[in-house]
Amino acid sequence: MKRKHLISVLLSLTAGLIVACQSGTKEPQYADFDNVVDTITEVELGKMLYFDPRLSSDGTVSCNSCHNVMNGGTDNRSFSAGVKGQLGGRNSPTVLNAVFLSVQFWDGREPNLKEQAKGPLINPVEMGNKNHDEVINRVKKIPGYVQAFKTVYPGNEPLNIENLATAIAAYEKTLTTLNSPFDKFNAGDETALSELEKKGWETFKTVGCTTCHSGDHFAGPQLAEGQGFYMKFPLIPNTSYDKKYKFSKDKGRYDVTKSKSDMHMFRVPTLRNVALTAPYFHNGAVSTLDEAVKVMGKTQLNKDLNEEEVKSIVAFLNSLTGSIPTQIAPVLPPTVGFTVN
Amino acid sequence: MKRKHLISVLLSLTAGLIVACQSGTKEPQYADFDNVVDTITEVELGKMLYFDPRLSSDGTVSCNSCHNVMNGGTDNRSFSAGVKGQLGGRNSPTVLNAVFLSVQFWDGREPNLKEQAKGPLINPVEMGNKNHDEVINRVKKIPGYVQAFKTVYPGNEPLNIENLATAIAAYEKTLTTLNSPFDKFNAGDETALSELEKKGWETFKTVGCTTCHSGDHFAGPQLAEGQGFYMKFPLIPNTSYDKKYKFSKDKGRYDVTKSKSDMHMFRVPTLRNVALTAPYFHNGAVSTLDEAVKVMGKTQLNKDLNEEEVKSIVAFLNSLTGSIPTQIAPVLPPTVGFTVN
Repeated sequence: MKRKHLISVLLSLTAGLIVACQSGTKEPQYADFDNVVDTITEVELGKMLYFDPRLSSDGTVSCNSCHNVMNGGTDNRSFSAGVKGQLGGRNSPTVLNAVFLSVQFWDGREPNLKEQAKGPLINPVEMGNKNHDEVINRVKKIPGYVQAFKTVYPGNEPLNIENLATAIAAYEKTLTTLNSPFDKFNAGDETALSELEKKGWETFKTVGCTTCHSGDHFAGPQLAEGQGFYMKFPLIPNTSYDKKYKFSKDKGRYDVTKSKSDMHMFRVPTLRNVALTAPYFHNGAVSTLDEAVKVMGKTQLNKDLNEEEVKSIVAFLNSLTGSIPTQIAPVLPPTVGFTVN
Repeated sequence: MKRKHLISVLLSLTAGLIVACQSGTKEPQYADFDNVVDTITEVELGKMLYFDPRLSSDGTVSCNSCHNVMNGGTDNRSFSAGVKGQLGGRNSPTVLNAVFLSVQFWDGREPNLKEQAKGPLINPVEMGNKNHDEVINRVKKIPGYVQAFKTVYPGNEPLNIENLATAIAAYEKTLTTLNSPFDKFNAGDETALSELEKKGWETFKTVGCTTCHSGDHFAGPQLAEGQGFYMKFPLIPNTSYDKKYKFSKDKGRYDVTKSKSDMHMFRVPTLRNVALTAPYFHNGAVSTLDEAVKVMGKTQLNKDLNEEEVKSIVAFLNSLTGSIPTQIAPVLPPTVGFTVN
């Protein structure tokens, strides 16, 4: 084959492959952003916003920075880093299956994902915006977003904080993992769990973990939105674990309500995907799941779990790992004519 | 570009695209990570590494943080932020089409993507590792990566810095955008460009931009790997633009070679996707493409371009925006039993 001809064949093959790759998705691409954004859905818009660091004051932190959907919905740090390297005060909870929780944040201070999404945007040590107007004004500078909000939301001035938080929440609601080995077992497939995992599930119930970690998501009974299922942590005072890991330094929900009955109360977290979300507890002080199980036995049930019990419970907890729907990385609307920082 | 070289690039591009296309169906998911990683490809492994903030010393910065493939391959900041909010000294170049450049970095100090990838890992103000051993030791703590490196690379101890950089480069080589409206026009489709864009292309050539921004990627003639095409910037001394934007503060390639002839010399960057990569120049001092074109006219060609010329050139530059292959967000191997920070 003559070289010139080969080049032309390869060029058209390349172009064809690019088209083939992109077929099956209608999500925007750089080259045709303005056209495709006319048919964008709320979830697609929310996904763009979720992955977009330009929502932070200096363009460095997105929702996904701390709640990384590629990495179990969290960042594997004790405390997350916000703009200018500042640290938050509590371990980032996973975004996966957060839709099933009736309150959000460790202290349950917001009732749903939409209200939750508004918080980090204006937290000085997270996304660092002075107020929601600052976020909205920055997003308004990005023509693709202006058009996308018009496409998704009716009314005048659709690019506002309520719609922005609604879109992010709409995307987050898709991040569920109800397909874990345990779910399959629970649906009747006895082969979905190993013997050790089954033993762990029995041990988990017998020793009393299900007192709090009950229900479809191992986060307690399903309550109405805004009504949280809380538990004191640590429940047993003055254990060596508490001294070692300084759990009691954080007053929990008390800081929200200033009610004595809320002292050291925290939302019971889901255990789905817990094997992916080290380190553990509100202060991320414990790196391994083994140690976390031992801590819980002692501080909540006043039990010294033996190695066999711990091993089986950890095996069971690993069976709660599921998979999110395949995520197409969203192409973000271009920054036109301004600098983010 | 020499034909032989073009054929080889197109062949590897085609191979990369086939891999990227196929990868959608079999990329690892949390729940079956250990199984699927046995069939992982080099490009898939490289993509995981590229998106993984655990390659940085405190788990906050990935390659993608500064070279965001969802956002034109860059971060729209003047200087990127590394670990602990520290700032780099030059504007992050786009990763898109970087494979076509014969040297990497603004000062051309590395010959290819593999060698480039090693730098930011151990730059104290970027990913912050003390040395490559620190990175490798952290990655070795992640069982999914240990297995993935075994799958992709033969030999003993496959998880090493050479293979890690090779994998990242393999992924980066797939990030090309040879499907812009201009490419279609250049291949014979007269309708692919508007009249204004065509006028801009003519103006671009007439005023002299192609003196440097020539070739298939508007980055100069294709040279052998490691041999860079450099130009002095600013070429015309003491313009008002230089005073305003402080371009001359940076000595460019001189800092690498200490040779007087390299004073203020910079690699000529590709103009592909330039409409996505504001702010402009090595110090990211200019926010708009209009202003960047005026600056170039004056500082490089000693011409005061008029509004009409600027408008048409900017339209032409916008026609260089292409689309990357659709990116499946990689599910990252779980952190088991350690805290990243």
